[in-house]
Amino acid sequence: MVNLIDGKATAATIKAEIKAEVEAIVASGGKRPHLAAILVGHDGGSETYVKNKVLACEACGFESTLLRFEDDITEQKLLDEVEKLNANPSVDGFIVQLPLPKHIDEQKVIEAIDPRKDVDGFHPVNVGRMAIGLPAFISATPKGILELLRRYNIPTSGKKCVILGRSNIVGKPMSQLMMQKNGGDATVTVCHSHSPQLKDECREADIIIAAIGRPAFVTADMVKPGAVIIDVGTTRVPDPTRKSGYRLSGDVDFENVAPLCSAITPVPGGVGPMTICMLMQNTLQAARQS
Amino acid sequence: MVNLIDGKATAATIKAEIKAEVEAIVASGGKRPHLAAILVGHDGGSETYVKNKVLACEACGFESTLLRFEDDITEQKLLDEVEKLNANPSVDGFIVQLPLPKHIDEQKVIEAIDPRKDVDGFHPVNVGRMAIGLPAFISATPKGILELLRRYNIPTSGKKCVILGRSNIVGKPMSQLMMQKNGGDATVTVCHSHSPQLKDECREADIIIAAIGRPAFVTADMVKPGAVIIDVGTTRVPDPTRKSGYRLSGDVDFENVAPLCSAITPVPGGVGPMTICMLMQNTLQAARQS
Repeated sequence: MVNLIDGKATAATIKAEIKAEVEAIVASGGKRPHLAAILVGHDGGSETYVKNKVLACEACGFESTLLRFEDDITEQKLLDEVEKLNANPSVDGFIVQLPLPKHIDEQKVIEAIDPRKDVDGFHPVNVGRMAIGLPAFISATPKGILELLRRYNIPTSGKKCVILGRSNIVGKPMSQLMMQKNGGDATVTVCHSHSPQLKDECREADIIIAAIGRPAFVTADMVKPGAVIIDVGTTRVPDPTRKSGYRLSGDVDFENVAPLCSAITPVPGGVGPMTICMLMQNTLQAARQS
Repeated sequence: MVNLIDGKATAATIKAEIKAEVEAIVASGGKRPHLAAILVGHDGGSETYVKNKVLACEACGFESTLLRFEDDITEQKLLDEVEKLNANPSVDGFIVQLPLPKHIDEQKVIEAIDPRKDVDGFHPVNVGRMAIGLPAFISATPKGILELLRRYNIPTSGKKCVILGRSNIVGKPMSQLMMQKNGGDATVTVCHSHSPQLKDECREADIIIAAIGRPAFVTADMVKPGAVIIDVGTTRVPDPTRKSGYRLSGDVDFENVAPLCSAITPVPGGVGPMTICMLMQNTLQAARQS
């Protein structure tokens, strides 16, 4: 029988755990964790993400600050704002919502963030520390996937894990976490658009983590019976039956794949809800350290 | 017919190329690249490595400085020496030869090195920048292997590459370089001591990179005819017929595997000689940037 991995419920549980810990900190005279977010411009997706992050802060008992700037902000002004947050002792962690307008060098902005406040885990210092197994802020999506696997008691040690996609925010860090002795301890294969052997690799996988951004890319013929499927895809596909005119599609042909699996994440409600929740965990970690 | 990958000859070619470039820089009024090395104590292996690095500097036309300290040096004194090298404008890059005595925190020393002078590529900033595909100092062994594959025109894009071992200095960075679009562009699998499927993975591999530290671990039954084998192992095994009493053994059963391969690196004379040569390349890169 298929075990549906409920990211929404798991995220709610974790947020309740975080809130309990925060109230205990406050009760013993400590300070509430404080997450700040910089939002540039009015991109619809970014507005939604940032709004949800602010709501998650409330749910966790955090203080939150949203700094908004128009999309004609200069790179220097944005760097100055980052510097102010670095220097502000009341802020434990902060994020700069991506993407940024074209005239701003995103990487320069990311590298301007104090690694100790980089709760997105995008600064090279955190990427590097994570890669060599040192304490670090781990970016939300791969961290959330590992957390889901653990909370559902899915064994990973010695298993064959195939990761589809080699992006800097999912595929690459996921591969590092899954191969580490103190992480997944799995045998990890990373496939991508230039992998002729992708289907064969999938067929042998005990765990497939799909982050390739193509709707319904993983089909039933690619899945070994009993496999665990983690679907990171969130592509908007047109759907005239919805008020919004679209629905979110994962990278997995859920309807046909689910009956084969021992466990699978749905889209939406699987990996997605875990992401913001891991940002909250990172912020709590930053608050403990500061 | 087996193509023997001659690391010694390739390294000599690259050193000659570096020397030619250095002489051109000097002829046009530039400064010779300058590599410094800190050596603590009298470990035999470390003495040899550092001596070879100094010799390689001479071969490349570099200036070199060796700073020696006894193994009772305090951590703070060593950190002060690192700080002096960071601040010394005549030094383009430097290394702290590992291992360090037990009372010194190696990671702390590595993180004290200015990433712009970290020609070993061990600082988390360089590890992280490499992981996300940004310009960085790449550590010598994985960089040397990629260079060997390129100089021998061995196709990697879309090939199945199996890496044995997940160490921070070989397996993990090698996997990142081999999977990147601008790197190997291969389908990469990392196996390790907890991988029950290791032999099966090897049998399907177009390229095997063995860095597991077990003499003759890769046997003929694990190799697909026509595969490319890169042997990173260098274990000392007793050999009474040698004056030294030992010989170096790779991770591959060379005698029986070589006849099957399209290309293979010997031990010694394969990956080993490339390592110091890549340190020289990194030092030249540091000098160009400073």
